[in-house]
Amino acid sequence: MTQHDHEPQGVSRRRLVSTVGAVGATGLAVGATGGAVVQAAARDDSRAPAPLTSVGSTRVAFHGRHQAGITTPLQAVGHLLAFDLSAGAGRKQAAALLKRWSRTARDLMADASDPDATGAAFDAGPCSLSVTFGFGRTFFSRTGLEKQRPDALAPLPDFSGDALDKSRSDGDLWVQIGSNDGLVAFDAMRRIQRDADGTAKLRWQMNGFTRTPGATRKPMTMRNLMGQIDGTNNPKPSEDDFAARVFVPASGSPAWMANGSYAVVRRIRMLLDDWDEKSRKEQEKVIGRRKSDGAPLSGGTENTDPDLDKRGADGSPAIAADAHVRVTAPATNGGAAMLRRPFSYHDGYRDDGAPDAGLLFIAWQADPLRGFVPVQRKLDRGDALSRFIRHEASGLFAVPGGAAKGEYVGQRLLES
Amino acid sequence: MTQHDHEPQGVSRRRLVSTVGAVGATGLAVGATGGAVVQAAARDDSRAPAPLTSVGSTRVAFHGRHQAGITTPLQAVGHLLAFDLSAGAGRKQAAALLKRWSRTARDLMADASDPDATGAAFDAGPCSLSVTFGFGRTFFSRTGLEKQRPDALAPLPDFSGDALDKSRSDGDLWVQIGSNDGLVAFDAMRRIQRDADGTAKLRWQMNGFTRTPGATRKPMTMRNLMGQIDGTNNPKPSEDDFAARVFVPASGSPAWMANGSYAVVRRIRMLLDDWDEKSRKEQEKVIGRRKSDGAPLSGGTENTDPDLDKRGADGSPAIAADAHVRVTAPATNGGAAMLRRPFSYHDGYRDDGAPDAGLLFIAWQADPLRGFVPVQRKLDRGDALSRFIRHEASGLFAVPGGAAKGEYVGQRLLES
Repeated sequence: MTQHDHEPQGVSRRRLVSTVGAVGATGLAVGATGGAVVQAAARDDSRAPAPLTSVGSTRVAFHGRHQAGITTPLQAVGHLLAFDLSAGAGRKQAAALLKRWSRTARDLMADASDPDATGAAFDAGPCSLSVTFGFGRTFFSRTGLEKQRPDALAPLPDFSGDALDKSRSDGDLWVQIGSNDGLVAFDAMRRIQRDADGTAKLRWQMNGFTRTPGATRKPMTMRNLMGQIDGTNNPKPSEDDFAARVFVPASGSPAWMANGSYAVVRRIRMLLDDWDEKSRKEQEKVIGRRKSDGAPLSGGTENTDPDLDKRGADGSPAIAADAHVRVTAPATNGGAAMLRRPFSYHDGYRDDGAPDAGLLFIAWQADPLRGFVPVQRKLDRGDALSRFIRHEASGLFAVPGGAAKGEYVGQRLLES
Repeated sequence: MTQHDHEPQGVSRRRLVSTVGAVGATGLAVGATGGAVVQAAARDDSRAPAPLTSVGSTRVAFHGRHQAGITTPLQAVGHLLAFDLSAGAGRKQAAALLKRWSRTARDLMADASDPDATGAAFDAGPCSLSVTFGFGRTFFSRTGLEKQRPDALAPLPDFSGDALDKSRSDGDLWVQIGSNDGLVAFDAMRRIQRDADGTAKLRWQMNGFTRTPGATRKPMTMRNLMGQIDGTNNPKPSEDDFAARVFVPASGSPAWMANGSYAVVRRIRMLLDDWDEKSRKEQEKVIGRRKSDGAPLSGGTENTDPDLDKRGADGSPAIAADAHVRVTAPATNGGAAMLRRPFSYHDGYRDDGAPDAGLLFIAWQADPLRGFVPVQRKLDRGDALSRFIRHEASGLFAVPGGAAKGEYVGQRLLES
């Protein structure tokens, strides 16, 4: 993560929280007395705005080399939206839309508070809001920009385990919104949608969530709805090849994708009723890791490399032949790696009584053919986890680099 | 709010955060470096569990005079579930279920961390989890307990503006779950559902959200998806008649409802596209309050009583005749009051392109005939807001008093 990606807020029209003590006092006060009922009573005491805690005041920068929302710490709430350009809207209208979207994203990310009080999140801090924009394969033919379409946007191969709902897959344009506050995220989503009025129509929309900052015993890798720690093998910013794996190089092709990335989005439903019937031991065998702390079954702690050759006292492999961690290990995939940054989702219950819940899988890579595709091909052939999941929607989007000041996202494509 | 309802955690198997400085340090650390990507790197440094922030460590007491989740500060995430008893399940099976549910709620509310690591939220703190149980009108005939059925559970009258979906209304049993962490709330919901296996079947389920603690400039009344401050007129614990309005008296009838309350649950969809087309001024006229701070249009601040007689320079009422705040004012409803504790909801988009979003309205009162019913009757006749909302589901539940130690919720009914 780069410095610019997560800077303290510095807007003069609000009081800043700059000391540990002040944040602590606010945090405690809110934790102990916050909420509708008691807050109403507390409110009587003072009309002056109180300082925000770090949850509210943390700001993600809009401008920078990369777009926000890729290496930005995962937020508590996420919304994914895909749009199709309306009939008659071409390159010019798309450029105007990206200009509006960039302005909206920039302003809300700086300060979600909305001085005109037209929106829902009037008195919120930025709450780590990030808004990320991408282009789908179909965008380029609709705008006459076929020559600028990256080869990397070739359709993903069909996987035998896919049961994709086309109406919730793909799309000309893709927007990812994240925030640590639900109302800030919702308000940003509504504004992004209103900006599109007349130019692009919502194709699909999905809601996700992860943990609230401070809810867990330690800063930790995400835990998914199966209870598994998920993302241990992610490339880490401290690794030499992190940028090369995740981002298109500054000299990359096409030129407008310099410092961009490709997002693979999969809605993966989990068969949680089946999963929950398994014992913890059986679940751990499917994954190849301990459920409690994510350590591989070959020993060590979460970040110990799995020892794929290790055998138990009875001679059987410590990590089963079809364990998820073995099939996805970079060592068994020619080093293929992607940065997974998923949200969980829960959309209630299906007609068959099963929860409609799982993972909004989002993987970032410099090249899907060296990231998602080879790994998913192997998973498709023999992953014990596949019995408990269903891929129900899919998208692949080209996410350009970040906008410099005075620029809008996608400008280098749309004005090329 | 009573002391017992929100006590600091005191479980020995975790490190406690007891000083402002410690909370502040953790809060800052999580705010500045939390999240999937960077957290993975930070995790290498230490295997020791870090202290939770107040978001994670705040615990709501299960045992007490009243059930949790009524005066408990509103949490960031909420789930509502209704169940119907299965064929063949009667009073005995219902008692066993309430026993299981009470044990699950008690354990998770004390510490959501789940030492057996069978659930999803293994390393979470309690995160202000609350679980609240209620009985619907149909419960009493199914269990042969008609004589114990409170008169207050008489069906709500039909309102002309209702368009209720029966499959998402009513139910034998009702459960309300709240937590400041999405995974803790989800895990609790799954456990409550598994506890019901074989005894009761899920009838409907709804997901809601509000603000994350620390996201706003001050502890504040909830803001709904229309952007309006919502709940200003709530009875306040500091008021003399608070308990009398919200809770059945200890000497109340039936005896098993002593210290209990009645919950009216309405799923109210908001026509947000129509609403957002209105100017801020038009919106404020509909409500009768300023959008920015909730002050009545007759002047003052949020907690100033609306002056319903005040007129502007042109002689027209400062608060319009059909303004929501006028129609709901206790002064115009014979003093009727209820404690509203709603969650917002957003379930994506409808086939007609409109957002399926609004309010999971939950109102608490000692007697629905002196709380919800008279107010809703008046709203039904002439509320400017009704043009922008649709009541789509409804439920009324008897929520017994809290369980003493060694008791389960509803024991005084089921073993009467």
